[in-house]
Parts: sequence; C-alpha cells; structure tokens
Amino acid sequence: MAKDQKKQPRPKAETPKGFRDYFGADVTERKQMLDAIAAVYHRHGFDPLETSAVETVQALGKFLPDVDRPNAGVFAWQEEAVPGGGTAGDWLALRYDLTAPLARVAAQFRNDLPSPYRRYAMGPVWRNEKPGPGRFRQFYQCDADTVGSASVAADAEICAMLVDALEAVGIARGDYLVRVNNRKVLNGIMETAEIRPDQADDVLRQIDKFDKVGRDGVLALLTTGRKDNSGAEIGGVGLADAQAAPVLAFLTSKGHDNAATLANLRDAVGSSEMGAEGVDELAQIADMLAAMGVAEDRAVIDPSIVRGLGYYTGPVFEAELTFEILDEKGRKRQFGSVAGGGRYDGLVERFTGQKVPATGVSIGVDRLLAALRAKGLSGGESAGPVVVTVMDRDRMGDYQAMAAELRAAGIRAEVYLGNPKNFGNQLKYADKRQSPVAVIQGGDESERGVVQIKDLVLGARIAAEASHEEWKAQPAQTEVPRDQLVAEVRRILG
Amino acid sequence: MAKDQKKQPRPKAETPKGFRDYFGADVTERKQMLDAIAAVYHRHGFDPLETSAVETVQALGKFLPDVDRPNAGVFAWQEEAVPGGGTAGDWLALRYDLTAPLARVAAQFRNDLPSPYRRYAMGPVWRNEKPGPGRFRQFYQCDADTVGSASVAADAEICAMLVDALEAVGIARGDYLVRVNNRKVLNGIMETAEIRPDQADDVLRQIDKFDKVGRDGVLALLTTGRKDNSGAEIGGVGLADAQAAPVLAFLTSKGHDNAATLANLRDAVGSSEMGAEGVDELAQIADMLAAMGVAEDRAVIDPSIVRGLGYYTGPVFEAELTFEILDEKGRKRQFGSVAGGGRYDGLVERFTGQKVPATGVSIGVDRLLAALRAKGLSGGESAGPVVVTVMDRDRMGDYQAMAAELRAAGIRAEVYLGNPKNFGNQLKYADKRQSPVAVIQGGDESERGVVQIKDLVLGARIAAEASHEEWKAQPAQTEVPRDQLVAEVRRILG
Repeated sequence: MAKDQKKQPRPKAETPKGFRDYFGADVTERKQMLDAIAAVYHRHGFDPLETSAVETVQALGKFLPDVDRPNAGVFAWQEEAVPGGGTAGDWLALRYDLTAPLARVAAQFRNDLPSPYRRYAMGPVWRNEKPGPGRFRQFYQCDADTVGSASVAADAEICAMLVDALEAVGIARGDYLVRVNNRKVLNGIMETAEIRPDQADDVLRQIDKFDKVGRDGVLALLTTGRKDNSGAEIGGVGLADAQAAPVLAFLTSKGHDNAATLANLRDAVGSSEMGAEGVDELAQIADMLAAMGVAEDRAVIDPSIVRGLGYYTGPVFEAELTFEILDEKGRKRQFGSVAGGGRYDGLVERFTGQKVPATGVSIGVDRLLAALRAKGLSGGESAGPVVVTVMDRDRMGDYQAMAAELRAAGIRAEVYLGNPKNFGNQLKYADKRQSPVAVIQGGDESERGVVQIKDLVLGARIAAEASHEEWKAQPAQTEVPRDQLVAEVRRILG
Repeated sequence: MAKDQKKQPRPKAETPKGFRDYFGADVTERKQMLDAIAAVYHRHGFDPLETSAVETVQALGKFLPDVDRPNAGVFAWQEEAVPGGGTAGDWLALRYDLTAPLARVAAQFRNDLPSPYRRYAMGPVWRNEKPGPGRFRQFYQCDADTVGSASVAADAEICAMLVDALEAVGIARGDYLVRVNNRKVLNGIMETAEIRPDQADDVLRQIDKFDKVGRDGVLALLTTGRKDNSGAEIGGVGLADAQAAPVLAFLTSKGHDNAATLANLRDAVGSSEMGAEGVDELAQIADMLAAMGVAEDRAVIDPSIVRGLGYYTGPVFEAELTFEILDEKGRKRQFGSVAGGGRYDGLVERFTGQKVPATGVSIGVDRLLAALRAKGLSGGESAGPVVVTVMDRDRMGDYQAMAAELRAAGIRAEVYLGNPKNFGNQLKYADKRQSPVAVIQGGDESERGVVQIKDLVLGARIAAEASHEEWKAQPAQTEVPRDQLVAEVRRILG
C-alpha cells in the first residue's frame, strides 16, 4: 500500500455529497428518542424486525408511499460473478424505506410469522436523489405496521400508539394532534358526485391543494379553473358545480366534535354505500379511541387531512405538532407534520398474488428530533467527562487510578492523553470537551496526599462575571485529601 | 404499477445471498448488549460517532485491519449524473469497517475535534465476499479508538475499558482474559536475530502458526522446513538456529506473572533498542493496568498472542473467552477470541500526509452475542404480550380498553386482531406469540361484569404433566371482577 500511495494524489477527506456524519449528542439524542418510541411499540405487542440494508432490486420493487419524495431513486449496483457465490448479474440496492422490506419479509416468512403480524422497525434508508439543504440521501425512519388484519381496530390501535409515542418522547398533551381521515369516504363522495374514473386522479390532485388555496380555490380548480398569484390561468377539472359540492362538503365537514363531523360526512356521502362504509369505519375508530382513553384533543376525525389519500386505501392518519416555532427567517410558523400512515393493500400481493391487508405509521425521525430541540426537550445530556490532568508524566498510573475510581462511582472520567507539557492546552482540551471538572495533582500535591479539584462550570461563570477580588479568591478551585476525590467531584456535579 | 405487474413474473421474496433478517429477540438482545458496551465507552470519556454507510471509494481506501478477512471486497457503484447533484462518475461504496470512516472523519474535522479524540462507533458494515455458514455480507462492528495520542496510557486505557465492557455485558471475571503483546518487541527480536527486511513477512507468517504447530513446528518452519500431517514437505524460511532462537524465546517468554514475562522478554531482545522500548512499553501498560485495578487474571502480558502483529505498529491486545462450549459436533472447545485491537499509524496520513498515532479495539458483536447465549446470559427477555381475545366483535372498544389499562400499568398487551370467529385460532395465536396470559370476556361475562384470566404458562405445564382430575379443576383459568383485571394479570406475571 505504501508504494502505491506515493504515486497517487491524496484522497479527499469528504463524505459523498448528500451524506453527513453525526457526532456525540446528535447520536445519543436520536437514540434516546428511538428507544422511547420502541418501548411504546413493544408495550403494544409489536416485535422488532431488522432487515438488511441491501435488497434485490426485484424484491424491492417501486412502492414508495412517501408523498414528499415521489421521484426518489435508489442506489443500485449489479452483483459481480463471485466463484461459488451469488448469481452474477443480480441487481442489488439499498432499501429506500422500511415498508418494501416488510413486504418481502411478510411474503417470505408468511408461514412462520404470527398472523396478524405486528412489527416495528427503525433504521437508516437511502434515496439516490438530489441533495438539498437539510435533505440528505441517508436518513432514519421509524415504522410500525400491522400486517394481516382488515379490522379498523388495527388502525385505531396504531393511532393510539402514535399518541403514546409522541408523549413518550416528551411532546406534551396539547402540543400535538393526530388527525384521522378515510379514503373510502372520499371514494363515496366521488361516487355520489358521479366523477368519472379518468377524472379521479385529477380531483385528488386538486383537493390536495386545500391547505394552500382554501375552499374557494379548490372549487375553482374542480370546475372552471382559477388565476394564480401571478395572474396565470390554471385550468379546472371541468366538474359541474353540483359535482364539486359533495367534494367541498367532504373537505369542510369538520365539526366541533367527532359526532358533528361524522354527521356532516354522512350527509356528504349521500347514498353511496362505499361512502357509508367509510363513515362507519371512522365512527368505529372514534369509539375505539375513546375506549382506549384517547380523547378528541389528542386524536380526532378530520376530513380536511387529504395528504396520503391517493396512496392509502382506507383510514389515513397524520400527526401534527401544533406549537409555533420560528423559521429560518424568524417568522412564527406551526411546526407541522411529524408522522403519517394509513391502510394499504397490495403489500404482499406483488410476491404471492394474494391481497394482505395492512396498516401502519411512519414517524419522521429527523423532524421529530428537530421539534424536541426546538422545545428545549432534547440536547441537555451533552455533559463532558471529568478530565484528570497530567502534571507529571511518570505518574500516569496515579492519574489513571483517579479516573478509574471516578468511573467506578458512575462518574464519566478520563485522563488527558495528549502531550502534557503545556498545562494550558490541557485546560483548553477540557473546555472543548465541555468538562464540568478538572482534577490536578502535581508532585507537591502528591507528596502532601491531596488533589486540586477545579469546578470548570463555576470557573467559567466567575471569569465572565466576577470582580477582581472574587476572582483572586479562586472559589472554583479547592484542595481536598486524595481520598476525598470522588466525594468532592460528586459534590460539585451535584 | 398494477398494469406492469400483470406482464411481469412475480418477484422472489428473498434476501440477497449472504444477507439475513433479524426478528424479535435477535434484535433486542443485540441492542441490549451494544447499549451496555456504549455505557462503558461513554463512562471512559468516549463520544459516539455515526458516519453514513456510504463513502467515496477514494476516501475509503483499502485499509482492512481484519486479519480474518484479508481479501474482503466492497460493494461499490458509480454515481449517475444527477442534474445539479453529485459529480457524475464518483465511485461510492458501503463501508467495510468502522476504522476507514474514522480515518476520513479524523482528517476532515481535524481542526474541530478535540485532540486526542476518543470515539466509539457501532453499526453494520458490509463485505462483498462469498457468503458461508454463519458468515454474512452485512454484520455489526463495535469499535472504540483514541486518535492523536502516542502515549501507551491510551493503549492501557483501551485494555481496561475492554475488560469493563466484557463484564458489563455479563461475562464473569475468570471467564475471559485480555492478552497484551507489542509489535516493537517483535521488531527488536528481528533486529537481534539479524533477520533481513525481505525475510520479515515470511517470519511473521510462520510465527502466526505458533497456536497450531507449537514451538518445535515454528522452529522447523523458521529454519529448514517441516512435514505436514499428509507428509508433504513445507519449506522453511532458512534462518540459522541461532537466528530462530530469539524468535522462539519471544514466543515462549510467558512467565507465571507479568514481572517474569517482562524479564524473559528483556533477555530475548538482547541489545536491540527497539526491543527494549517495546518491553518498556509493556511494563508501563502492566503498571497502568494494575493502577486501574485490573489484575493479571483479567488482562495480562502474553507474547504468544501474535495475531494482528503484522498489521499493528505497537501494543496489540486480544480478548478471549476462556470457558468451554460444545461445538456443532458436540466436542468441547474453548470459545476463543471476541475482541482485538492495537496501535496503528497511517490512519490519517493517507489524507493529510501527517502521521497521527491511534489505538483502538473492535468487539466482534456476533461472536460475543453467541457467547452470551451459550452461557445462558441472553435470551430471557422474549416474553410475549398479554393477548386480549375477542369473543364479540361488536365490543372491540371494550377489549381495547382492557389492553390500554394493562399497558398503562406497564404490562405488554394487545388485542387479537385476526378474524375472531374461531376461538381456537386466537389461543393458537397467543401460543405463537409466547403470551403468558390470555384475557377472555364473552357476552355472559360482560353482563356479570367479570373477565376470565387464563394463565398460559401454567396451562401449558398442566397440559403436559397434570392428571385428569387436576386438568378438570382448571387451575390455570380464573374469573375475576372486571375491575380486578390488571391486579390479577400482574399477580400471574409475578
């Protein structure tokens, strides 16, 4: 290797574009959040599943539920011919979500898995797409799905579990809301409105703009079209007003409570059987949520939630954080969606030909973590270690004994391992590590059987605030007998 | 998609060759083990680092420290031209270990990271090689490294931490031993023995066989050669006996304690300065381990440990589990190595041209987990959830309320979500889930305000052991008032 290096230019020390590293607290905070969510999933009877990052392109298919990234590509490569190994020519790829591997597992192990199969999965997924600010090509997902149950009890359970998960990571009641809608109600509306199948996708696209353009905007888009802000004409779907009316009734049917909303929806779906079935399902979900102690201020029927309606086949849910944060331009805005899910068919069908009903939820790990930070609920636990400084490099064993004693008492501690010549560098290092305490023992202190304990947090405050007299008194540094080391450090750490 | 599917044959529901899925306890047991190790690393002042799975091939280089898999390949692919995205033509690859990404990070962030930089990392790595029994192309590694310290205090600390980590996951004192050797001592031996540089690799290869062929075997291999079991002649390196003598003295210098071993080594290195430096380093490590409270029954100087000597540049360590297990043929054998590491140069040099000293350890996650299972120290926590059965599908809310109450009391619980018609299927499901308890409430019980609680563990034992009279008495099923549900389940779970 050494010979080759001389000939080659030095490699660049860079991540590939769109990838990043996570250091220290970034790793532990995400882990704490995922651990809390996993505990909730586990308590609900869900079992962990960890599939490999690599799947065959064939098994992976193209099944992206994520409406935010519809055109995402995958990282794929072709297997080489390995003597005696895998078939040459197989195309492999990194998983782009956790649902496609679940589909493969549900088909592959369908005779062994319990049915229904409740599983959760958390881990990185990869998208081969254009990176952008805050948009990476590797990111975490955290999913829970129930495969093999057609009952809306499974959907209600997922909603209740989502509520529990949000509270488990520290989002207070009142700071979030899970909204529930149902694709079947929309299908019933389409039936009642006599919308032709070839118009359905177009109608879905327009009602998806309800958030942005409001009731009148959607009405215009469904009928004769509208002008956008720049004055440009945007063509309409061409429905008659009478056809658009049930769609708008659907979108605006949210009442002051679930009972009122359900009554409005029953009116809106008219005589459609599919629509009535959808409303019945929502009514059952509402009852079950109440039975599980989830009140309407935590999860509520809300037909204005249309995101995902195109992809899912039955109930749809979305969790929104309702508190305001400041955006990058300092403007207040709602934090918005952190999780979504719903019922979908065809998960296993690609493999076996049999429809298997499934429902699930995916939590946006990075967004939820950002929300916790915005609320000051994460980021506290980045305390550095106690640093035992080195005054005399022949006595490393003494310093290591001190660190070992501190650790045995459960205190995070380390010995300074750089060049000890310059003591200032050791304190600079402790500062960089955000150390709360430095331990110092020179030859003199060693002979007298004492150690100096420096309270670096207090020291920093004094340096910033104290008068000259206060500073001279050095209250941040105390000398204690060697055998009081652990007790004194513990006192300072509180 | 639906249209395409009809034309295509169904995809195979299979992992790519050499990859596998991990279900339930396989996931949680590994997680628990890694959490325990991370806590030890953290307490020693090490910070977590999570790099992305994907690196540029250029940055990754070819730097495999793993002597077990020297010819491992990588999974690599070439970037497509993404409009406005990454440079077309960049070759990307999945990381093959956690050291190469550390090298890249240490170079990329050298001005921002504390120095020395202590970091730990745990996660999957990928090798594009021939899969075999128990040999997968994705597996976990768990590393801790100190970058930027030339002091053997860093090596001693890693050894002490490894000892702590093994005990933290449940390996009892006496069931493991960390052995420490030093490449510099071997270099000194080579000097004293006047072994030519072009013979060095050959000598290394032969002493690596010490475990298998013993003292006399290595002597023959270093000098005139030997016959193997089949009678075939194996050529020797061609050293004179006087040259081979110091090498053999080195390999067999282990005394009854560290002091004796170090004295033997001092004799063996003769007048070599390099050798004396190596022995001094081992003596310092021995002193520091003692200072940290790590006795010689936990970590010991042992020059017969030659694995890794070719790769590392200074101290080398290896953790072995010393208890016996039965192999696949039922024969007793030592469990063997579960972790290894040492000091290496050139980590960052590829990128910056500057040598940065580093030392680290890698724990074999799968082997250590297998060891814990072999000792019965892992695998207990696979208790299934309490299953609330469904007797009346119109009362799903009632059943969900029961499960919610149990969960609120911290008990893992779920409602049966399959087709409830056949009650036997519900109990079969509970059996498959390894449920400890089933809850039953039919219309009759509901009217009377009671629930039936079935102790499935006791029930299984009775079914296997009990007499007909005992079985008829149904001690495994009790009826309690509805409001005693949680208390009764808690009583049964103990």
